[in-house]
Amino acid sequence: MSQTPISRFPIRPPGELPADLAERYAEVADRSGFLPNIFAALAWRPDEARAFFAMHDALMEKETPGLSKADRELIVVATSAGNDCLYCVVAHGAVARIRARDPYIADQVAVDWRKAPLSPRMHAVLTVATRLAADPAGVTAEDLTGLAGHGLTEDDVWDVGMITSFFALSNRLAHFAALAPNPEFFLMGRLPRGTEGAAGRP
Amino acid sequence: MSQTPISRFPIRPPGELPADLAERYAEVADRSGFLPNIFAALAWRPDEARAFFAMHDALMEKETPGLSKADRELIVVATSAGNDCLYCVVAHGAVARIRARDPYIADQVAVDWRKAPLSPRMHAVLTVATRLAADPAGVTAEDLTGLAGHGLTEDDVWDVGMITSFFALSNRLAHFAALAPNPEFFLMGRLPRGTEGAAGRP
Amino acid sequence: MSQTPISRFPIRPPGELPADLAERYAEVADRSGFLPNIFAALAWRPDEARAFFAMHDALMEKETPGLSKADRELIVVATSAGNDCLYCVVAHGAVARIRARDPYIADQVAVDWRKAPLSPRMHAVLTVATRLAADPAGVTAEDLTGLAGHGLTEDDVWDVGMITSFFALSNRLAHFAALAPNPEFFLMGRLPRGTEGAAGRP
Amino acid sequence: MSQTPISRFPIRPPGELPADLAERYAEVADRSGFLPNIFAALAWRPDEARAFFAMHDALMEKETPGLSKADRELIVVATSAGNDCLYCVVAHGAVARIRARDPYIADQVAVDWRKAPLSPRMHAVLTVATRLAADPAGVTAEDLTGLAGHGLTEDDVWDVGMITSFFALSNRLAHFAALAPNPEFFLMGRLPRGTEGAAGRP
Amino acid sequence: MSQTPISRFPIRPPGELPADLAERYAEVADRSGFLPNIFAALAWRPDEARAFFAMHDALMEKETPGLSKADRELIVVATSAGNDCLYCVVAHGAVARIRARDPYIADQVAVDWRKAPLSPRMHAVLTVATRLAADPAGVTAEDLTGLAGHGLTEDDVWDVGMITSFFALSNRLAHFAALAPNPEFFLMGRLPRGTEGAAGRP
Amino acid sequence: MSQTPISRFPIRPPGELPADLAERYAEVADRSGFLPNIFAALAWRPDEARAFFAMHDALMEKETPGLSKADRELIVVATSAGNDCLYCVVAHGAVARIRARDPYIADQVAVDWRKAPLSPRMHAVLTVATRLAADPAGVTAEDLTGLAGHGLTEDDVWDVGMITSFFALSNRLAHFAALAPNPEFFLMGRLPRGTEGAAGRP
Repeated sequence: MSQTPISRFPIRPPGELPADLAERYAEVADRSGFLPNIFAALAWRPDEARAFFAMHDALMEKETPGLSKADRELIVVATSAGNDCLYCVVAHGAVARIRARDPYIADQVAVDWRKAPLSPRMHAVLTVATRLAADPAGVTAEDLTGLAGHGLTEDDVWDVGMITSFFALSNRLAHFAALAPNPEFFLMGRLPRGTEGAAGRP
Repeated sequence: MSQTPISRFPIRPPGELPADLAERYAEVADRSGFLPNIFAALAWRPDEARAFFAMHDALMEKETPGLSKADRELIVVATSAGNDCLYCVVAHGAVARIRARDPYIADQVAVDWRKAPLSPRMHAVLTVATRLAADPAGVTAEDLTGLAGHGLTEDDVWDVGMITSFFALSNRLAHFAALAPNPEFFLMGRLPRGTEGAAGRP
Repeated sequence: MSQTPISRFPIRPPGELPADLAERYAEVADRSGFLPNIFAALAWRPDEARAFFAMHDALMEKETPGLSKADRELIVVATSAGNDCLYCVVAHGAVARIRARDPYIADQVAVDWRKAPLSPRMHAVLTVATRLAADPAGVTAEDLTGLAGHGLTEDDVWDVGMITSFFALSNRLAHFAALAPNPEFFLMGRLPRGTEGAAGRP
Repeated sequence: MSQTPISRFPIRPPGELPADLAERYAEVADRSGFLPNIFAALAWRPDEARAFFAMHDALMEKETPGLSKADRELIVVATSAGNDCLYCVVAHGAVARIRARDPYIADQVAVDWRKAPLSPRMHAVLTVATRLAADPAGVTAEDLTGLAGHGLTEDDVWDVGMITSFFALSNRLAHFAALAPNPEFFLMGRLPRGTEGAAGRP
Repeated sequence: MSQTPISRFPIRPPGELPADLAERYAEVADRSGFLPNIFAALAWRPDEARAFFAMHDALMEKETPGLSKADRELIVVATSAGNDCLYCVVAHGAVARIRARDPYIADQVAVDWRKAPLSPRMHAVLTVATRLAADPAGVTAEDLTGLAGHGLTEDDVWDVGMITSFFALSNRLAHFAALAPNPEFFLMGRLPRGTEGAAGRP
Repeated sequence: MSQTPISRFPIRPPGELPADLAERYAEVADRSGFLPNIFAALAWRPDEARAFFAMHDALMEKETPGLSKADRELIVVATSAGNDCLYCVVAHGAVARIRARDPYIADQVAVDWRKAPLSPRMHAVLTVATRLAADPAGVTAEDLTGLAGHGLTEDDVWDVGMITSFFALSNRLAHFAALAPNPEFFLMGRLPRGTEGAAGRP
C-alpha cells in the first residue's frame, strides 16, 4: 500500500486550506481518527470540495423508516462495486459494516448483491439503483412506483436515485484521480465491537 | 411536448423557494428568457440544488486556453449522448451551438463525435471523457498524460474528469426524474445570429 | 461543416450518370431543393444505387393505417440513433419532423425513444425495431404477434422488420463511407410551417 | 427439420410470381437443383425481391484479384455468424466451401475466424468487416487504408463495406422471418468433389 | 487444415505417456478410429488429463429420462458456440449429430439455438445453460426450479450446471491452446447411417 | 449469514462419504480449522469431487519462480471478481492475503486489479487471465508469448490458462449452487500475524 499515492493530482497541505474547510477537515479527522483520502484529494479545489461534501451530507446523513443510513451505504457499495471503484467499495463498505452491525454484508453486497441476505425492500432498492448506475436510460416509471410499494416515501425514492447519481460522480472522480483508500478502512467493522476504533466517515 | 411533465417528482412553486435560491432562479430566468427545467426539478430539494449549481458553475463557467466554455459544453454533449440523456443533450447542445457559434456541431458530437470536425486536442479530450463516462475503470494514467501532451494544464485535465463525473450524476438524475427539456432549447443556436433570443443556461 | 467531405469514396459528377439515374437525381434535387448526399455517394455504383433507392421507395413511400410515413421515419431515427449514424439521424430526423408536423419528436426519439411521447402502438413498434437492430437473434415470434395486437397488418409487421433491416445496411454504409449529411437537413422542420423550404427526401 | 416452416410470412406459390421473377427463380432452381428459401420468402414482395437480388448480384458475382468470390462468401459467413444467423451461415457457408474448395473453412470462419487459417489479407478484411457489422461507428479511415495496404483496390474496399452492410440487412430479415435454410445446404461442399450435386446459390 | 497445429503447447508422444493414460488413449483411438486432439493436447499434463477426463465421463456418459446423452452434447454445443470455441462446437457437434440421429441439429443449436426445433424441456435447459455460461451471476433459484418443472430431477439440474461449468473450462483451455479439431469431426453424423465410420468421442 | 444455506443442492453428511474422500475431508478440516464449504457442496457427487480437487491441487499447490502460490491465488481473485463470484473472491482472497502476507492486496485485486500495486509481470498475467475469463476468443498467440517475455516458462504460461479455465468452472458451479463462503474466510489474513488461526484452504 505504501507505494500507492493518494491521488494523481496535487494534495494541498491542510495549512493552506480556506478556514471553513480547514475547520471541517479537522473535525472529520478528529471524529474518524484519520482524514479519509477523498478530503485530501479534493482540497486543491475548494469550491468543488464544498459542493461535494454538501451533496454527500444532504443524502447520506439521513435516517428514514424507508431508507436507513446503513441502507444508503449499501446503495453506495453495490453501485460502486459495479464500477470497480476501490475507494468507494472499501471506504463505504467499512461504514456499511459498522452501520449495519454486520461484518459480512459489505463483501456480500459488493461481490454479488443479488444473492446477499437482504430484505425484499433492499433487494428492490438495489435492483433499481444498480440499473440506474449501469443503464440509466433503462429505469422506468414502474421501477419507481415499485419502490413505493416497498414502503419508500417519495423522498426516499428520490434519495435512491440521487445517492446512485452522486456516486456515479464519485466513482468516476476516484478512478480519474486513482484515489487510494486509507489503510484504516480495510479492517473497520470486521471485528467484534469494542476491539477497534471509531467508525469515521468516508 | 405538452403532454410531457417536467419531472416525475414534485415541482415546488417559485414563491416557496428559500430566499437565496429564489434570487438565483429569478436571475437565471431573466438572463435566459426562461427557467431551465433542471432548476424547477431541483427546487424541492434546496440543499441539493445549492450543491448542484455550485458544482456546475465551478466547472462550466471557466474559460482557459486548454478548455474553452464551448469545449466544456461539448464534453457534456458527448458523454450525455452516450447515456441517452435527452435533457442534457438538448439543453447543453443548445449552449454548445451558441458558445461554439456553430449550428451543426452539437448534433455531430451527440450522434458520432468520433467523426465530428474537431481539433486533435478536442478529439483526445472526448476520447478520455467518453471512456470515463462509459468505462470508468478503463481510464489510465497514460490517458491523463496524453491530454497534457495536447496542451491541457493539470487544472484542465482535472476539469475534463470532473465535468464528465458531474454529468454522470446529472444524466442519471435526469433519467430518474424523467426530466424534460424546455422547448426553447431545441431551436437555440440553429439560426443565423440575431434572429433568436439570448442563450440561456442549461 | 465545410471541411467535411461528402464521402470517403469517389463522387461521380452528375453529368457522368447513366440516363435513368440522371433523371431520377434531377427530380429529387428539384423536389427537395438540394441533392441529399446519399445520392451523390452512391452515384459511382449505379447498380447498387438503383437497388438501394428501389428498396427505399418500396418501404418508405407507403402510408397505411398501421404504419404512417411519419411512423416509418421514426423507425429509421430510432434504429439509426442506436448505431450512432449521423447521416440517417439528421436526414431522416428532418423528414420525420416534417411528416409528423412536430419539431421535437425526432430529437426525442433519437436520444431516448423509450420516454418519448409516443402512442402505445409506436412504442411497441420501436421496441421490436430497436431489438432487431441491436440484437437480431433476440426477436421472437411473440414480438411479431405483439405488433399485430396493436393493429398492424401482416404487411405492416414485415415493413417494421424490413425498414429496420434496410437501415442496418444504410447505417453501416454511411459509417463506412463517412457520409456527411447536407447542412440543409439540420434545420428542416424545426421552424413554424411556411418559414422554410420544401421537405426533400433523405 | 421438417417441422420448421420456411418463413413466418406468407410463401407465394411460384405460379403467382410476376413474369420476370418467375423466370429468374426458375433459372436459379435449375442451376442449383433446388430453390434457396430466401427466394421463396421474398416472393410475396416482388419489388423488394428485385432490389434484394440485384444488390446481391452486384456485390457477390464479382471476382477481383483483391477479393475473390470465395473471399466475399467468407465475409458473409464471418459477419452472419456474429449475428447468429442460421440461414446465412449455412447457405453461404455451403457456397464458401465450394468456392474455396475447402471442406473446413466455413466452420472455421463461422465459429472463430480469428484463428482460422487465412491469409493476412483476408484476416485484415474480416477484422474490418466484423467491426463494421458489430460496431459500425468504430470503423475508422485507418481501417480502410489498411485494407488498401493489403492490395485491395478502392472498389474492393467499398465491396467489403457494402457486402457487410447488405448482410446486416439479410441477417436481420432472416431472423425476423425465422428463415430456415434448405436441408441441401448443410452437406454441400463437405464431400470430395464429384460425389455431390451442383453448388447452387444462396 | 494441414497448416494448423494441434496445440500451442507441447504434444507428448503416446509412447511417453504413463501406463494408465496410454491404455486409456489407446482404447479411445480404437473405439473412435482416431485420437481426438484434446487427448493429445493434455498428454503433457498427466494429472490434469486424468482429472479432466474423469470429470468429463462423470457428466457426459450418463443417460437419464430428464437429460439424455444427446441432450448433454447439445448443452456443450450451445454454450461452446456462445464462446466461439471451434474445437468444442465441431467435436461435440459431431457427437450430438450421432447421438440425436439428426444431421442438422448441431448447426441449428450452434448458430441459433433459440429458434432450433427443440422440445420445451430442452429449450428451458439451454436457456439456463447459456445464461450460466455467459452471465453466471444472473442465474436465479427460479431458473433451477423451472427446470424441475420440465421433469428434470435434482441430479439432472446439477448436471445442467456442472456440464456448462466444465465446458466453460474446456472452451477456455481450447482457446488458450488454440486447440484444433480433428478433420474427421467435420463430416461425422452428416451422412445417412452406414456410410461413415464410428462416432468416436470428443 | 446464518440464514444463508451452504448450497442449493443436498449436503451429504461426512459420515456417508466414501473412505478416500472422508479421509481427505478430515485432513483439510484439521489443517484449516474448518471445512471449506466447497468440500461440503461437492460431497454428494464423489466422482466430481475427486476430479475437482485433483485438478485444483495440480494447479494451485505449485510454487515456481514465474508463478508463486500467491500469484496463483491472485489469478483466482481477479478472474472470480470479474464473475461476481462471492465464494471464490472471499475464500481465495483469504488465502491470497496469507500467501502474499499483505492484508490489502486481495481487495485491491478483486475490485480494480488494473490499479493494484502489482509487478509488471503480475499485471501482464492478470491482463491475459481476465481476458481469457471474460472473452476467451480474444486471447492471441501474442498474449502468450508476452507472458514468456516476463519470465514465465511454458509450464507457467499453461498454468495461467488452466487456472483461469478451472475457476471459470468453479465460479459457475458456485453461482449455480449459490455456494456460501464460510464466515471464517472473511477475516483471515487481515490481522497482524499471530493473532489469528491457520490459513486453511479454499
